[in-house]
Amino acid sequence: MAAWGERLAGVRGVLLDISGVLYDGGEGGGAPIVGSVEALARLKRSQLKVRFCTNESQKSRGDLVGMLRRLGFDISEGEVTAPAPATCLILKERGLRPHLLIHDGVRSEFDQIDTSNPNCVVIADAGEGFSYQNMNKAFQVLMELENPVLFSLGKGRYYKETSGLMLDVGPYMKALEYACGIEAEVVGKPSPEFFKSALREMRVEAHQAIMIGDDIVGDISGAQRCGMRALQVRTGKFRSILRSRVWSTSCRRPSCSRQPAAITELARAQ
Amino acid sequence: MAAWGERLAGVRGVLLDISGVLYDGGEGGGAPIVGSVEALARLKRSQLKVRFCTNESQKSRGDLVGMLRRLGFDISEGEVTAPAPATCLILKERGLRPHLLIHDGVRSEFDQIDTSNPNCVVIADAGEGFSYQNMNKAFQVLMELENPVLFSLGKGRYYKETSGLMLDVGPYMKALEYACGIEAEVVGKPSPEFFKSALREMRVEAHQAIMIGDDIVGDISGAQRCGMRALQVRTGKFRSILRSRVWSTSCRRPSCSRQPAAITELARAQ
Repeated sequence: MAAWGERLAGVRGVLLDISGVLYDGGEGGGAPIVGSVEALARLKRSQLKVRFCTNESQKSRGDLVGMLRRLGFDISEGEVTAPAPATCLILKERGLRPHLLIHDGVRSEFDQIDTSNPNCVVIADAGEGFSYQNMNKAFQVLMELENPVLFSLGKGRYYKETSGLMLDVGPYMKALEYACGIEAEVVGKPSPEFFKSALREMRVEAHQAIMIGDDIVGDISGAQRCGMRALQVRTGKFRSILRSRVWSTSCRRPSCSRQPAAITELARAQ
Repeated sequence: MAAWGERLAGVRGVLLDISGVLYDGGEGGGAPIVGSVEALARLKRSQLKVRFCTNESQKSRGDLVGMLRRLGFDISEGEVTAPAPATCLILKERGLRPHLLIHDGVRSEFDQIDTSNPNCVVIADAGEGFSYQNMNKAFQVLMELENPVLFSLGKGRYYKETSGLMLDVGPYMKALEYACGIEAEVVGKPSPEFFKSALREMRVEAHQAIMIGDDIVGDISGAQRCGMRALQVRTGKFRSILRSRVWSTSCRRPSCSRQPAAITELARAQ
């Protein structure tokens, strides 16, 4: 494993994406990716610091962690950096009152936020909540504002569930941007601020950290732009380059592991 | 009216947008814009050739014309250039079998089109049909194709109904473009091919024609790029520049009439 040792020289912390890396969501809560429960356990027994950096915005952190623990993963709420709590901080700092186009599963994260007389819009992965009526309402709220502000919790194109590929929040963010002639503020990967907050929470410098994810833009390119190393797994939404037009975005070539899961390789290299 | 006479020198044909120019759609079929029925009648009594150039894609031409006639407009099906029939021609020419994400009201236009084992996707203004499930299905069809082809019937941002502004097909086109990493083929305004087919049908050269519409991109800029003159009405989706971020697209300044409707001014100038 000389190649792995070289690639990982000086790494002290590992940021792990969740969906598509630890498990694939779907009916009945989804299923762990083969080998990932054991790989995470092994990683946690190593000298590396571990933190979870997710764009999950259909579930509150509490629900997400509960579900993952039921699937057998060693994870606690305090180890998770997620966009909903980060958005709440920004809303409070800037005195903004959002109209929320979000999934009911994540609504509890916004319990302490004033949503009366909205002066911005927050969209997250609303799933079936992305009805025409709900999208039109968000559009109308934005068009009524003198200075329309749109926050998007991540900008992923799609993710993989056990039943197949599913549209993520990104396409709906693009729809509202185009309809209103504005640019959204993305909270979540690949925003540098989001990666930096995860690194601060893990107390590791960017050059000492590696991001493991399945999204070439959100995970890999985003982490590399922050000075981190990155490793793309071939699970989740991964598609080979030949089939993957959406991955034509130019970015430095990431490390890319074969199955079994990249995490196993990483723990093994320690 | 010297200014009008000068602006209209040499004009032989008038292309009229429909929604937001002749009427505002809405519950119960919508309502004519004040003065437009009379203005169209006056225009038709003039020496000018008249044709209707619409991106309407919720209704078949037959239903659209029937509705407009009930509102009092002098219009027949053969006078209308619309994107659904234009799309059917392209599909037949290229041997394409579409998956249709369209409104039930326009489905009859596609009666003669083979939709089995689809090798492209056609989206139109589907209104409530733009559910998450339907969007995801269109996305999945595209992602399964080796060379994904997406047709969009127009790319309007929004339109005005009597109840307020409504999202048009354009935002959903952008959503699928982003999700799949592709670029849609637009059939309808502002596509030059679409304007040219309307001019051919009216038998008028571009420099002899004027387009009247409420959309600065789809109607005004599109027509000007084809060498036509253009006149923007202050009805329909028109919003003053100060409020209208989406109208920052650079285009030559169109003529712009005050109420009563621009069409009246035009007929008067003859």
